[in-house]
Amino acid sequence: MIKVITSKNNERVKFACSLKENKNRKIHKMFLAETFKSLQMALKNNLVVEIFALEYVDAPSEIPQNLVSEDVLKKLSSNVNPEGVVFIAKMPEYQVNNPSKVLYLDDISDPGNMGTLIRTALAFDYDLVVTSENSVSIYNEKVINSSKGAIFQIPVVVGKLVDFVGTHEILVTNLSKKAIDFNSITIADKFVLVLGNESHGVNKETIKLASKEIVIPIKNIDSLNVAIAGGILMNKIH
Amino acid sequence: MIKVITSKNNERVKFACSLKENKNRKIHKMFLAETFKSLQMALKNNLVVEIFALEYVDAPSEIPQNLVSEDVLKKLSSNVNPEGVVFIAKMPEYQVNNPSKVLYLDDISDPGNMGTLIRTALAFDYDLVVTSENSVSIYNEKVINSSKGAIFQIPVVVGKLVDFVGTHEILVTNLSKKAIDFNSITIADKFVLVLGNESHGVNKETIKLASKEIVIPIKNIDSLNVAIAGGILMNKIH
Repeated sequence: MIKVITSKNNERVKFACSLKENKNRKIHKMFLAETFKSLQMALKNNLVVEIFALEYVDAPSEIPQNLVSEDVLKKLSSNVNPEGVVFIAKMPEYQVNNPSKVLYLDDISDPGNMGTLIRTALAFDYDLVVTSENSVSIYNEKVINSSKGAIFQIPVVVGKLVDFVGTHEILVTNLSKKAIDFNSITIADKFVLVLGNESHGVNKETIKLASKEIVIPIKNIDSLNVAIAGGILMNKIH
Repeated sequence: MIKVITSKNNERVKFACSLKENKNRKIHKMFLAETFKSLQMALKNNLVVEIFALEYVDAPSEIPQNLVSEDVLKKLSSNVNPEGVVFIAKMPEYQVNNPSKVLYLDDISDPGNMGTLIRTALAFDYDLVVTSENSVSIYNEKVINSSKGAIFQIPVVVGKLVDFVGTHEILVTNLSKKAIDFNSITIADKFVLVLGNESHGVNKETIKLASKEIVIPIKNIDSLNVAIAGGILMNKIH
């Protein structure tokens, strides 16, 4: 089913663009993604609903495919130089049984950081990423873009840290004096690594749940970017 | 010397905005920066030329200071929600004698990645960051923003990797099969850590200069974000 679309006011284009808003993503349980690499990962996981591309893309024929003009693609894309494909994906539904390695994002606000952290968690074979209620939306376009397709391969859910207390060691990154050098810790079989907000760090309520507070020893400046800190910690703790 | 500016067409505002272009930055050897934290770091290093702020900022009286309206600030700023201060800084001039710990960026194109890498190099006490000719401009506003003031504290210059051959061990990150696990290497007193472009990795000519090719062992995906890889490597190699 291949259609040609040259108007930015086409109904399917308007529907796709409506998914740039969180409330519409929630209603339809769908979101927008782009790049060929992400498309491959989404196809592999049967999560592609509809494709908008400059040229025909190799995909199962039951997935509606729209050949669009460059200005239509630019309207759909969140990149200044779109790669040539934008697609509607359905939100994956996960049943994660007994995850061992969990990353918890406590009010992460920058979508680039969240996407990069999801990509990194996949690279270090984490079982699950949990984001706090007040974190940026998982399906924000910039999260999806910077996850580089990882969003289609690792379970990412909104949830509560307290649900892991008692079963998992809770490792909370913190810059306080109580925090211990992460290089010196031993790692439990089941753990949650907790990273905090870009400006104010982890919440006070979160710290109360910590089994251990950990820190990366650095010099000259107060803190690392949260995605960098996450990368350094996940490289050791996994 | 405090002036009040409410017009976006004011000559000083126009001059400041002209520094958003690389060619003008090169002519005047100045660039735009923002946030109070960066301002503090720049003041400490005597690099502030002129300040534009919503309210008076505590700074030496010889530095021209302009109190500006919100729309003037928005014109000057590269952030959607500017923090309240934008300033013109002069490009630092460095004499780096005999640097031991060097980070070399081989055609890094994303300004956020470059800024974050500069911040991380400062945190791990590197002596020098060298960027290839084809990397994004060091003084691009997004580089400055994501460096979080680190640009005022660690020498960053455009240069050539070949200048370090013979005196430094050249550690090149590469995804080839020849590359060895970075965890297993011993670190020389003097080294250059080399990171490659976001899409195509390090250049072929760069690989030829390698003392060692190194890799971070990961699963499930092809590669990490370059700033994340840099963070993981610098945490070990410093």
